[in-house]
Amino acid sequence: MTPRPAPAWRTTDWLNTPEPLTLERLRGKVILLHAFQMLCPGCVARGIPQAQRVAEVFAGAPLVVVGLHTVFEHHEAMKLESLRAFLHEYRVKFPVGVDAPGEGGDPIPRTMGAYAMQGTPTTVLIDAQGRLRRQVFGMHDDLQLGAELQTLLLEAQAAPVSGVQRPAPQKVTAACEDTGCAVPSAAAPD
Amino acid sequence: MTPRPAPAWRTTDWLNTPEPLTLERLRGKVILLHAFQMLCPGCVARGIPQAQRVAEVFAGAPLVVVGLHTVFEHHEAMKLESLRAFLHEYRVKFPVGVDAPGEGGDPIPRTMGAYAMQGTPTTVLIDAQGRLRRQVFGMHDDLQLGAELQTLLLEAQAAPVSGVQRPAPQKVTAACEDTGCAVPSAAAPD
Amino acid sequence: MTPRPAPAWRTTDWLNTPEPLTLERLRGKVILLHAFQMLCPGCVARGIPQAQRVAEVFAGAPLVVVGLHTVFEHHEAMKLESLRAFLHEYRVKFPVGVDAPGEGGDPIPRTMGAYAMQGTPTTVLIDAQGRLRRQVFGMHDDLQLGAELQTLLLEAQAAPVSGVQRPAPQKVTAACEDTGCAVPSAAAPD
Amino acid sequence: MTPRPAPAWRTTDWLNTPEPLTLERLRGKVILLHAFQMLCPGCVARGIPQAQRVAEVFAGAPLVVVGLHTVFEHHEAMKLESLRAFLHEYRVKFPVGVDAPGEGGDPIPRTMGAYAMQGTPTTVLIDAQGRLRRQVFGMHDDLQLGAELQTLLLEAQAAPVSGVQRPAPQKVTAACEDTGCAVPSAAAPD
Repeated sequence: MTPRPAPAWRTTDWLNTPEPLTLERLRGKVILLHAFQMLCPGCVARGIPQAQRVAEVFAGAPLVVVGLHTVFEHHEAMKLESLRAFLHEYRVKFPVGVDAPGEGGDPIPRTMGAYAMQGTPTTVLIDAQGRLRRQVFGMHDDLQLGAELQTLLLEAQAAPVSGVQRPAPQKVTAACEDTGCAVPSAAAPD
Repeated sequence: MTPRPAPAWRTTDWLNTPEPLTLERLRGKVILLHAFQMLCPGCVARGIPQAQRVAEVFAGAPLVVVGLHTVFEHHEAMKLESLRAFLHEYRVKFPVGVDAPGEGGDPIPRTMGAYAMQGTPTTVLIDAQGRLRRQVFGMHDDLQLGAELQTLLLEAQAAPVSGVQRPAPQKVTAACEDTGCAVPSAAAPD
Repeated sequence: MTPRPAPAWRTTDWLNTPEPLTLERLRGKVILLHAFQMLCPGCVARGIPQAQRVAEVFAGAPLVVVGLHTVFEHHEAMKLESLRAFLHEYRVKFPVGVDAPGEGGDPIPRTMGAYAMQGTPTTVLIDAQGRLRRQVFGMHDDLQLGAELQTLLLEAQAAPVSGVQRPAPQKVTAACEDTGCAVPSAAAPD
Repeated sequence: MTPRPAPAWRTTDWLNTPEPLTLERLRGKVILLHAFQMLCPGCVARGIPQAQRVAEVFAGAPLVVVGLHTVFEHHEAMKLESLRAFLHEYRVKFPVGVDAPGEGGDPIPRTMGAYAMQGTPTTVLIDAQGRLRRQVFGMHDDLQLGAELQTLLLEAQAAPVSGVQRPAPQKVTAACEDTGCAVPSAAAPD
């Protein structure tokens, strides 16, 4: 199956960015688009934290994490001012666009409709050429998501997120800590 | 830096496999080697579950998960019979080798020594050509690990774990569930 | 120290209850008052779930769980319509009062001020005589909270939450499940 | 129903205590007896951590937490030396008795049989008069357990675990932290 170009984003506002983002402006970078609602419990508990971790883990790679606030219910409860406070309190640092209202009274906002999203959270992966390569409704597995993002990064001839070589020596703790058990001799090198 | 060949495994017993595993026999496959001790709390709570999830998520790929029981303390407490019961109770299905005792009274077992592991858990990634490409002491991030495994799989010209294409339609649930909020119209198509 | 009467609640609205609640109307019952803000991450992730579990575990006891929405920042972001949607999406079933705005431009709402709360979440325990017996800012330990609630219930000569007698036979599962390991003979009595 | 005296403990060894414990020696104290197996996943992940938290939260009360190693399967895998290392690695500090082997080849050890336990973990509550008051197979709810322990402590005329009075001023953090949102004025008193 040939991947199709990702539909354009139709937004009314942007937060956490000095100017609106578009697919064209991000060409050349892999995009993780995280569609959410600020009052969706699954988004708050798991989806947004996953998007935040992606932004951290892939910080050095040509990859951008973009949020999209796709409100399709309780519209009055999730207006711009509430979203702004939400992003502040949950320390969401990545850019977030507000999906444009549906036309003709459609409760589904326009970008959400163009992508035929089934609900929130939805994770969308777009490659460096702007093509839609993956769309998952509900929680996505971290291992799988890491593999998919790396595939798109390697395709783009980009520097991969990890060199996968021998690591530098790590800090070693004594005995069994929460994270593991250190070899005593390693803990006290001569 | 040129990756070096992974040191050979020196073991005394194998569980969950009809015959001993060696690097030579696994050539052509990417290997995740998970070194652990059955009484290491960090291994039990997080390391082994991560290795089990890798085995599930990458089930269709040319990748094998191998456990290595690297006991470097409390040797009398973690003998073969205890390990066998441990694997049964924790439902560990992947093959597990028992690292050979250190020579000359060395408490560090031989494979652990050859890899210069700093403790448990340690995650080792070996590429399809048998080269040591990554070694992490302590917990490894799922997103990062997924990316690293995919890099090695793509290098091997192997079928990647995920096609990263448009997904098949997924089951849609009504309203907000634990995992997310479904679009009502998607939940009840006419 | 002699406990003082709990300060009266000053509210502008109530949700999840046909009529406003007051300390006088609840006299004779132990009260857990949970003060929160709908955009406070600690409240959403831990405080409100704890209050919900208290309501379930102590369902048969003369105890009521009451929420109090004490907004002291981002007032525009957490108005009544947003709170209503929040309670719906998070399935909060207990009554929730909206704390009255502070006087003279004080950002601290009135009930929050009267209790000298330090922030959200705050858990307040009020005994059956309407006296303030406990106030904790931040997360409260479940074991400790259970003990404190039981103290107030026993004082009130109320039926305690649990008879603490020999339990009825429980459902037995076979072998080791997530929750534990069943004795085989108990699982298959002759 | 009149509670019956708790059956005597039949043990072969004790760890974490200079001398064996008996019900007679503990008379006057409330007892939480935690029956477990060191290779029972539910015990390791949840049961033992709960018992450890009870020991901490009720540290000032006349209450003792006692472990009982009730091995009913894989006997060869969980001998004394393995248990000793397990307690060390998991930092279990409370006394642990080793249940005596069943008679005539019975795989169920003797104390486990005398209490008719259905498996592990099992939580047993014994009052200050040595009577069996509660027995739960599988995980027990923290709120409920806290309430039950407090009931037995109050019955014993013992000092309750918590005074349930106005708390001392607590440390206040600025703005929203993981645990909650602090009132700005409280964070910066004049």
